[in-house]
Amino acid sequence: MFIVEGVKSVEEFLRSDYSVHHIYHTAQAAAKLPKIPQNIKSVEIDESALKRISALKTPQGVLAVVGIPRYEPLTPAMLQQGFHLVLDDIQDPGNLGTIIRTADWFGLERVICSVGSVDAYNPKTVQASMGSLARIQVYYTDLAELVAHSPVPVFGAVLDGSSIYHTDFGQHGLVVLGNEGNGIGPAVLPHITRHVTIPRAGHAESLNVAVSAALFCSELARKKDGT
Amino acid sequence: MFIVEGVKSVEEFLRSDYSVHHIYHTAQAAAKLPKIPQNIKSVEIDESALKRISALKTPQGVLAVVGIPRYEPLTPAMLQQGFHLVLDDIQDPGNLGTIIRTADWFGLERVICSVGSVDAYNPKTVQASMGSLARIQVYYTDLAELVAHSPVPVFGAVLDGSSIYHTDFGQHGLVVLGNEGNGIGPAVLPHITRHVTIPRAGHAESLNVAVSAALFCSELARKKDGT
Repeated sequence: MFIVEGVKSVEEFLRSDYSVHHIYHTAQAAAKLPKIPQNIKSVEIDESALKRISALKTPQGVLAVVGIPRYEPLTPAMLQQGFHLVLDDIQDPGNLGTIIRTADWFGLERVICSVGSVDAYNPKTVQASMGSLARIQVYYTDLAELVAHSPVPVFGAVLDGSSIYHTDFGQHGLVVLGNEGNGIGPAVLPHITRHVTIPRAGHAESLNVAVSAALFCSELARKKDGT
Repeated sequence: MFIVEGVKSVEEFLRSDYSVHHIYHTAQAAAKLPKIPQNIKSVEIDESALKRISALKTPQGVLAVVGIPRYEPLTPAMLQQGFHLVLDDIQDPGNLGTIIRTADWFGLERVICSVGSVDAYNPKTVQASMGSLARIQVYYTDLAELVAHSPVPVFGAVLDGSSIYHTDFGQHGLVVLGNEGNGIGPAVLPHITRHVTIPRAGHAESLNVAVSAALFCSELARKKDGT
C-alpha cells in the first residue's frame, strides 16, 4: 500500500484502476472531497492525527491509502507500442515523479525503472507526479536483461552521442536515461544501440535527468506532429 | 552573503566573478579541495561544526560563504541580446535551481525573476543549480513594468496558445513562465504578445515549470541549430 495526499491527487486515483482502500480527511476538507464510492472506507480525523500520518510538511486535509498495483509482465508486443522511458538507477523521488508527470503529458503509457531506482510509491514521488501516477504504469525490472533482448531500438541519453535534433527515432524504441550522478551504468551501456545527446551551448556539466527525459519526450512528440 | 556547498560547486564559485569570503571544510575534505587563493580565509572545522552550519542533510565536507552580487540594471540593449527566461512568482527553490542549470546548459546569460519569486541564494536553489548559479545572472525586478516596456517580443508559456513547435521565435525575446500553481499572473499576462503552448498528447493537467522552461530553451537552441 502507499499513500496519496491532496484533493486533486486523491480524485485522480479514485478515477483510476487503482484500488483505494481508505480515505482519511479532516472536517475542514470534507466539503472539497469528490464523491467517494460506498465500498471505500472514509474516516474523518482531526488535524493533528492527519499530521501524524501525512508525509507532507503541510498536510492537505485528505489522504488515501492505495494498493500498489501488480502489472502483467512486459512483453515484446508491449515494447513495440511506441516509446518507453527507461530509467537506470534514478535516485531522486522528485525527479521520478516529475518524469511520470511529463510522460503522462506527452501520452506515454509506461515508465520502466531498474530495480535499483527509487520507489515510485514514495510519498515524494507520488506528490511530484501530481496525480499522473494514477495513469502511468511504472515497471521495475532487470534493465540489462531488458535492453539486451529489446525488440526495438535502444536510444540512450549520453554526453557524446549524435544530436537529438537530428535523430530519427522511428516508430518505437526505448529511451534510456541514467542515474543523476553517474549516467547510464556499465551493465546497460553496451546495449545502447543509438547514442543521443542534447547539444550544449553553454557551460553546465549536465542537465537534470527529469529535464533530459522531457526533452526526449518533446522530440518524440514533435516528430509525431510532423514538424 | 549566501552559502555554497560541495567541492564541485565551491570550485565553480572560486572560478567565477563572485567574491568568496570564507571556506569551511573538514580535515577529510581537505585533499579534495581546489587551490584556494591566499586572500580567501579557509578554516578547517570538525564534522559536527560543519553539520551545524550546513543546510544539507548530508553535508559534503566543504562550504563557502559567498557575497550576493549586485548587477548593473537591465537595459533595453541587454534584453536585445538573444533570449531571457522570465519567471513570474516561481516558488519552489528546486525548480529555480534547475532552471538556472538548464539556462546555463543552453547558453543563456540571465534569468529574470519577479520580486515575489523564491530567492536564488536559498541553499536549495544553489544546490539544484549544480554550480550554474556561478555563471548565470539572476535578476529580480518588477515584471509588469519589464514586460510592458519590453523592446523585444514577449512569449508566454500558457495552456491555450499556438504550438511551440510551430512558433517562430526570431532573434530575441522574453520567455515568461508562471507560478507553479497559478501560471502567469494578471499583472503580466496582458503584456504577453505571443501565447505559446507545449502540445499535450496525454492527460496530465500541466507540466513542471522547470520542464517547461527546458522545452522552451531547447526549441530556441534547435532553431539556432537550423533544424
